[in-house]
Amino acid sequence: MSPVTGLSSGPLDRVGLLGGGVIGGGWAARFLLNGVDVALFDPDPDAPRKVGEVIAGARRAYAKLTMAPLPAEGSLTFVTTPEAAVAGADFVQESAPERLDLKRSILGAASAAADPSVVFGSSTSGLLPTEIQEGMTNPERLVVGHPFNPVYMLPLVEICGGDATSEAAKARAAEVYSAIGMRPLVLGKEIDGFVADRLLEAVWREALWLVNDGIATAEQIDDAIRFGAGLRWSFMGTFLTYRIAGGEAGMRHFMAQFGPSLKWPWTKLMDVPELDDVLLEKIVAQSDAQANGVGIRELEALRDDCLVAVIQGLRTVRGGAGYGAGEVLGDYERELFSRAQVPSAAGDPSQPVRTHSTRIPTDWVDYNGHTNDSRYAQLSCDAADAFLRLIGMDAEYLRNGHSWFTAESHISYLAQSKAGDAVYVTTQVLHHDPKRLHVFNRMHLAEADTLMATGEHIYLHVDTAAGKAVPAPQDMQDRIAAIAIPHAALEKPAQAGRYVGQPRG
Amino acid sequence: MSPVTGLSSGPLDRVGLLGGGVIGGGWAARFLLNGVDVALFDPDPDAPRKVGEVIAGARRAYAKLTMAPLPAEGSLTFVTTPEAAVAGADFVQESAPERLDLKRSILGAASAAADPSVVFGSSTSGLLPTEIQEGMTNPERLVVGHPFNPVYMLPLVEICGGDATSEAAKARAAEVYSAIGMRPLVLGKEIDGFVADRLLEAVWREALWLVNDGIATAEQIDDAIRFGAGLRWSFMGTFLTYRIAGGEAGMRHFMAQFGPSLKWPWTKLMDVPELDDVLLEKIVAQSDAQANGVGIRELEALRDDCLVAVIQGLRTVRGGAGYGAGEVLGDYERELFSRAQVPSAAGDPSQPVRTHSTRIPTDWVDYNGHTNDSRYAQLSCDAADAFLRLIGMDAEYLRNGHSWFTAESHISYLAQSKAGDAVYVTTQVLHHDPKRLHVFNRMHLAEADTLMATGEHIYLHVDTAAGKAVPAPQDMQDRIAAIAIPHAALEKPAQAGRYVGQPRG
Repeated sequence: MSPVTGLSSGPLDRVGLLGGGVIGGGWAARFLLNGVDVALFDPDPDAPRKVGEVIAGARRAYAKLTMAPLPAEGSLTFVTTPEAAVAGADFVQESAPERLDLKRSILGAASAAADPSVVFGSSTSGLLPTEIQEGMTNPERLVVGHPFNPVYMLPLVEICGGDATSEAAKARAAEVYSAIGMRPLVLGKEIDGFVADRLLEAVWREALWLVNDGIATAEQIDDAIRFGAGLRWSFMGTFLTYRIAGGEAGMRHFMAQFGPSLKWPWTKLMDVPELDDVLLEKIVAQSDAQANGVGIRELEALRDDCLVAVIQGLRTVRGGAGYGAGEVLGDYERELFSRAQVPSAAGDPSQPVRTHSTRIPTDWVDYNGHTNDSRYAQLSCDAADAFLRLIGMDAEYLRNGHSWFTAESHISYLAQSKAGDAVYVTTQVLHHDPKRLHVFNRMHLAEADTLMATGEHIYLHVDTAAGKAVPAPQDMQDRIAAIAIPHAALEKPAQAGRYVGQPRG
Repeated sequence: MSPVTGLSSGPLDRVGLLGGGVIGGGWAARFLLNGVDVALFDPDPDAPRKVGEVIAGARRAYAKLTMAPLPAEGSLTFVTTPEAAVAGADFVQESAPERLDLKRSILGAASAAADPSVVFGSSTSGLLPTEIQEGMTNPERLVVGHPFNPVYMLPLVEICGGDATSEAAKARAAEVYSAIGMRPLVLGKEIDGFVADRLLEAVWREALWLVNDGIATAEQIDDAIRFGAGLRWSFMGTFLTYRIAGGEAGMRHFMAQFGPSLKWPWTKLMDVPELDDVLLEKIVAQSDAQANGVGIRELEALRDDCLVAVIQGLRTVRGGAGYGAGEVLGDYERELFSRAQVPSAAGDPSQPVRTHSTRIPTDWVDYNGHTNDSRYAQLSCDAADAFLRLIGMDAEYLRNGHSWFTAESHISYLAQSKAGDAVYVTTQVLHHDPKRLHVFNRMHLAEADTLMATGEHIYLHVDTAAGKAVPAPQDMQDRIAAIAIPHAALEKPAQAGRYVGQPRG
């Protein structure tokens, strides 16, 4: 457990979760992957399995989403009462079914047991915070914090207070959600469905009419979104899109040109279709036809892969500054760097530094059933990154336009590893000067403590704007020297300074 | 001009465009970039400048979107009458302002002059094809072909026939649109707003209410879309998204759980807000605040960059098969390759083998904005895999318990690359014996054709069950020799046989 520090209104070491369905499980995954311990209350005896599956999906997605240093995962405990969930919690998130009496009962019990200063977020998409907070102990700390599925991937969380909610509670919730990589949208007014669900509901009602009236099938309606406006909506909303569509004359021109269409009889939303058995069967049958036998787990994995691809794509635009969800990811990664546990050189300074430890992920394994060659390079590179953080490569240093670029790498493969193997890496400094760093990494299988590969790397210190090697800052050079001086007494590794294919011995 | 060939109902050498606004200009760009000549009629004397700007934007976007062999650009001619636009045209697309009388007048004149078999598409988003086709010569060839802005980027085009429209006309329109990289959605019924605009209009009306009632600003409403559901909508529509949200129990469960919310008073769409001066001014002011002084051209470029990033991201999923708009792009690129005049692919046996080409995926990029070190190893490894397949490493060979394991890799980094860069790899055999293969890979940036990295690898041929090196099968050794013999005459690469940090020169 690596607590999220630097929050202005208190730490975020542990959260209490009330409810462990799709949404509650998503919250559990997001908090755990951000190093926060989770105590989860859900009366469903099957909750541990379901939540475990959501967390497994989230781990898989995060492994693809970011190469930034995520903290060590938090611990997950299932508890049997709301009171146990909130004991010692720094924040509480409620994701119980959408029934007011049920939410009030759980929140009433939990708020009576929690520290009075702890803020509660409710995941409700349909109930108003003023109604939910009634009967709570210290109702001023209840906000709606409405997320979107999958909670561990989508940045949006709508924050909305009720009549009794304090400004401080909203600020604390925004702080907590931001700290775990989300993008809070703080609403000024309480309204049914908040903002996002009103827009989604408008689409949903129109879609139901189109199916009901036999105009289009579920698949055609989905295609009408994902091959058209949906592509734009992943980074720009309706207003900015229409501003651009207005062309040179801008928003006023667009409104003048398309405003009158509001009078046209385009939507049937004056009314809601009766969700009778006929319509229900039609939708279920069309949805089955669309899914074509592909199961939910597979669809979830596809959805997450697409979200990763879209968000990562949006991170590359604007010269790397990112846009929309890509900008949120970039900010989050810089924050992860600034928070990362700098590997402690606390061990024996006369020995190589233990820079990195992990388990081999399943997607590192190739057709031979072993870790793919290139993943040894990645492992060695991750260790080198940790070493660079140790000598002072932090978010501010990167923002200032400096970095270390790799010039050469030589990997020697000594033993195979497979998915799930615990591994650790040590780093030895072979040589350094103001612009260069020459290190030697030993990759070990932790269980047998055997050497499985070595990596020899040369890094150049660069000014990223100028694109050329420049001397590292003096304090960074000093930190390297402090490690390198005792390392100078170490024996030269057998695999170092050799060419590929050089006979051993 | 390179005509699009292989269309079943005739060639597509030349199109007539009626109207050159934002939409007509977008059609011009899409046809031109696909090698089709365009004759465009627009009475606006400023049309050439406006259309030219749209085409410039499209060229910029396509240069980033695809490295597939686009044909030579078609030629663009501005003409002064509808009749001149359709003379000799293989297809006609009308994008005049949304006034029925105007469209009828232009289409009447154009259809009287056009070859009777030529199909007409109308870009209308608000008028019905039955109304539009009235008064045309051969009205059966009129379909609505409703695109989305920017026309040169978004794949969706809704095809809808009127009472007089023939099935053949709809089929021909679908064929034409597919040939220029679009994804036609053929609707069975004629309805105001077709499908996509009904969904967009539902969102727009709700958004106007939210602004009108002071619940949220234009920017907040946009954020509620682009940080949440909008990310999903770029690849999955509402129905499939909700099916997944239903979890293991599927669509029926989702409908049972969320169906009742249809009865809640969430939307105000029973009515339409009065678009009076007060609301108009409010929207214009909020839109100005959101744009924050950034001009339309810059916003267009940002939009296109984001679309490129999203679509390319979606092409990388499902093991490279792509999904949604990414799958459409993949199909389109394969089509471009099959249409291109491909020179003999056999290659010069005296030169290194071109083993692999790809684009740098978005998730290969690290916090420096460049391809992560270890991904060069992966690229080199992918090329080596392709080489191993070339010498006979197939599924059966692997099933028989043989494989090649990597013993050593040495990567030298010479230039940076970034997401989306087209790259290719060549492989040179340096040495081989029955149990060993020593290769040298050169990784190139394709556009500038510069060397960006090299990889030197030694592979051992192993019996995977016994876990030890054994001689490769004779036929495999023979295939290696056939490549290695001419390679023996090649110069030894400068980066080969060197240790890490060895001075160059």
